[in-house]
Amino acid sequence: MRYSALMTDLYELTMLAGYLEHDMHEKPASFDLFFRKNPFKGSYAIFAGLEPALRYLEQLRFTEEDLTYLKSLGIFRPRFLEYLREFRFRCKVAAPAEGTAVFANEPLVTVEGNLAEAQLVETALLNIINFQTLIATKAARVQQAAGDGVVVEFGLRRAHGPDGGLGVARAAFIGGVRSTSNTWAGQVYGIPTRGTHAHSWVMAFEDELEAFRAYAKVFPDDVILLVDTYDTLKSGIPNAITVARELREAGHEMRGVRLDSGDLAYLSRETRRMFDEAGFPEVKIVASNELEEYVIQSIRSEGGRIDIYGVGTELATAGGEGGGALGGVYKLVRYNGEARLKVTQDIAKATLPDRKQLLRLMNSSGGFLQDVICREGERLEPGVTVYDPTNPSRRKKLAASISYEEVRSVVMENGEVVTALPDLETSADRCADQLRRLPEGTLRLYNPHIYKVSISPGLHDLREQLMAKHET
Amino acid sequence: MRYSALMTDLYELTMLAGYLEHDMHEKPASFDLFFRKNPFKGSYAIFAGLEPALRYLEQLRFTEEDLTYLKSLGIFRPRFLEYLREFRFRCKVAAPAEGTAVFANEPLVTVEGNLAEAQLVETALLNIINFQTLIATKAARVQQAAGDGVVVEFGLRRAHGPDGGLGVARAAFIGGVRSTSNTWAGQVYGIPTRGTHAHSWVMAFEDELEAFRAYAKVFPDDVILLVDTYDTLKSGIPNAITVARELREAGHEMRGVRLDSGDLAYLSRETRRMFDEAGFPEVKIVASNELEEYVIQSIRSEGGRIDIYGVGTELATAGGEGGGALGGVYKLVRYNGEARLKVTQDIAKATLPDRKQLLRLMNSSGGFLQDVICREGERLEPGVTVYDPTNPSRRKKLAASISYEEVRSVVMENGEVVTALPDLETSADRCADQLRRLPEGTLRLYNPHIYKVSISPGLHDLREQLMAKHET
Repeated sequence: MRYSALMTDLYELTMLAGYLEHDMHEKPASFDLFFRKNPFKGSYAIFAGLEPALRYLEQLRFTEEDLTYLKSLGIFRPRFLEYLREFRFRCKVAAPAEGTAVFANEPLVTVEGNLAEAQLVETALLNIINFQTLIATKAARVQQAAGDGVVVEFGLRRAHGPDGGLGVARAAFIGGVRSTSNTWAGQVYGIPTRGTHAHSWVMAFEDELEAFRAYAKVFPDDVILLVDTYDTLKSGIPNAITVARELREAGHEMRGVRLDSGDLAYLSRETRRMFDEAGFPEVKIVASNELEEYVIQSIRSEGGRIDIYGVGTELATAGGEGGGALGGVYKLVRYNGEARLKVTQDIAKATLPDRKQLLRLMNSSGGFLQDVICREGERLEPGVTVYDPTNPSRRKKLAASISYEEVRSVVMENGEVVTALPDLETSADRCADQLRRLPEGTLRLYNPHIYKVSISPGLHDLREQLMAKHET
Repeated sequence: MRYSALMTDLYELTMLAGYLEHDMHEKPASFDLFFRKNPFKGSYAIFAGLEPALRYLEQLRFTEEDLTYLKSLGIFRPRFLEYLREFRFRCKVAAPAEGTAVFANEPLVTVEGNLAEAQLVETALLNIINFQTLIATKAARVQQAAGDGVVVEFGLRRAHGPDGGLGVARAAFIGGVRSTSNTWAGQVYGIPTRGTHAHSWVMAFEDELEAFRAYAKVFPDDVILLVDTYDTLKSGIPNAITVARELREAGHEMRGVRLDSGDLAYLSRETRRMFDEAGFPEVKIVASNELEEYVIQSIRSEGGRIDIYGVGTELATAGGEGGGALGGVYKLVRYNGEARLKVTQDIAKATLPDRKQLLRLMNSSGGFLQDVICREGERLEPGVTVYDPTNPSRRKKLAASISYEEVRSVVMENGEVVTALPDLETSADRCADQLRRLPEGTLRLYNPHIYKVSISPGLHDLREQLMAKHET
């Protein structure tokens, strides 16, 4: 993916022009990227998109073509265009590792540097992080629902554009979906690819059995037959069993069949029974057709015998209640040495001011207890009272003995990546580990236990002070 | 956007390898791209994505890097990789023009050529057409809801990746949304761009009035002030009125204010009143914050006074009931000189076999009456009985006198574009014209009149014959 410096809302550029005009552009500033609601009405999100975001920041340059275009808009002065010609991103960036479980209201990416540089990247950072985190979270939910079942990402045809399809495969892998039908994603990201044949293969032959035999002849060791072109139980499965027998006689074993319509719980049970009775207990059952986490959960609860779930549309577009988009925002929290606050009538939409640390409290076996957002440099004392960030009347005392770790680390200094970025496999492992460490009930698809995120006394007091100042 | 030949589900390639092995790859075949449900529970879709789809088809080549990757999978024989090295797309393609109103079950893109070439492009065509058509349709709905109000596409930060954001701006323009915040889309597609400032601008100054004055100083002729950082009616609007007066004294007129939270119907009425009383009836009211077609309709029905709607997340992700994805599919309808049918237990999922024409019947003033899908070469006689494609017991007689036109034309022959592709402005004009010509009630957002699509006697009879053949 080529990232353009113009991949931004125009208002970032008009603001930059204004900052330059008022000589504010080099004043120090900090921005936080966060979201206010966990997606899918769930209790967590899986942070993803950091590496592409950092690649964007590293290569951010305005080309002559870009400057010519901006000049053509007729709203920018020559001095500003000269400024853009020399523009480089030299900020400091802190973030969690990809695959980390994160929660509503937590500062995820923090960008610190001069006001112009930290402001300009708002739109692109949101675009990349919102999309990748959304899909990784959906994938984690789908994989959780599938239990030990294998999930394959099948969504390229419904993804939002070619590059959207690539991004889906990447984020889904981090979320726990370990293979894709998307050949390009296989090439670009090294994700294992899967695929055999479509209905059109069957329809191109005179009859289904001939089509199955023809496929088996070409790929005798990788035969997964799509059995619903005509009638799954009366035609598809019996023909597939015939081919399985013929393959075995020739020294091969059939890998599986794919169900793509009908009552998948029922059909998969019948399919399992028919193959078992025919002496093929190892043949896998693949299913597809508008699958998502709730459908998979329901199939499993009805005793469905599916081994591999092909999940397309709903994974590629992060569909379902509370899905479709992650509402990440990017807010100024400190400027020119002073904490800044966006006040609103609704405290749930007020920001958390100033530089912060994000701490994760753990029990002795590494299980996550809760997160606390502190001011930078603030020491989190055992036994102190912490507050719900959106409703400070809800408070609790921390235990007398606590252990915690920082969720985020500095990943970029002076515009350069200062950490070894993990490969996708490592990020996926991290995601799986994080999910295991969440409190019981947090992974429930519907009406989950809400993982607690609190703000520290220092941060609470600072926000109260700033709000009081704006009220006067 | 770079299009890779690997931008495909792996199964297209395994099928191609199989076709080659069985010497079927050069046999003639026809595929139809269609969808089964109108998106958003509406009555129509706006066809879009043809130009990018044709660009993809024209440049489709396997690079050495692609072949090396495919070889590494260990499933393809050298002969197949050699075949791919020489692969060119040389099919014939028929399609509607972008901006055309289209409906469930209609053949949209038809690809005719040899089996291998027509099969391979399935995933990429679906990806491009599904996404562009989905967004163009959403945009048309939003613009319809806004009436004479202006809509600006604000969705880049929530779009599915950078290229997703570009695609959203393009398709939204075709659907009737005539400007975007996405500067890159302005550069690439020539779409007008809009944008002024964010909350961070206000927060970077000591107080709101100072921030407003500072903005007005830099862009005195393009001032749209965001008025909800602290308190819209008590602070934002009074400060904006102060700046409007100062601007007028200096010989400029303020363009507008933007509301981004709260009860937009109420706030816009109050804002209008306050500006009118202050002598600024020309100041425009811009609103944003989770807008979509139903919210806009509701604001207007409550007497909201919004001139410009900034629509982001819901437009960029095509959110809402029946949204998120368009379920386009791509099915084999003819192979080696014979019509082909996918039968299923559910006739609503059966395909329409063979080569077809898509005809639009019109009244004497050009209004659309209904569409009829015929067999190629079949003459549609006045007075004949036509059938509902998903429920043939629903039938009707056509009028004794009918006039119609073909909805589609041949856009590619032998892999080369053979028609002048319209610019985006022309496609947007086409969309607006098509929407005007639809029957009353078809544009209703909720529970619309369902535009009738029928199949001709010839197509009905062919399908019945093929279904009877498969039942025996």
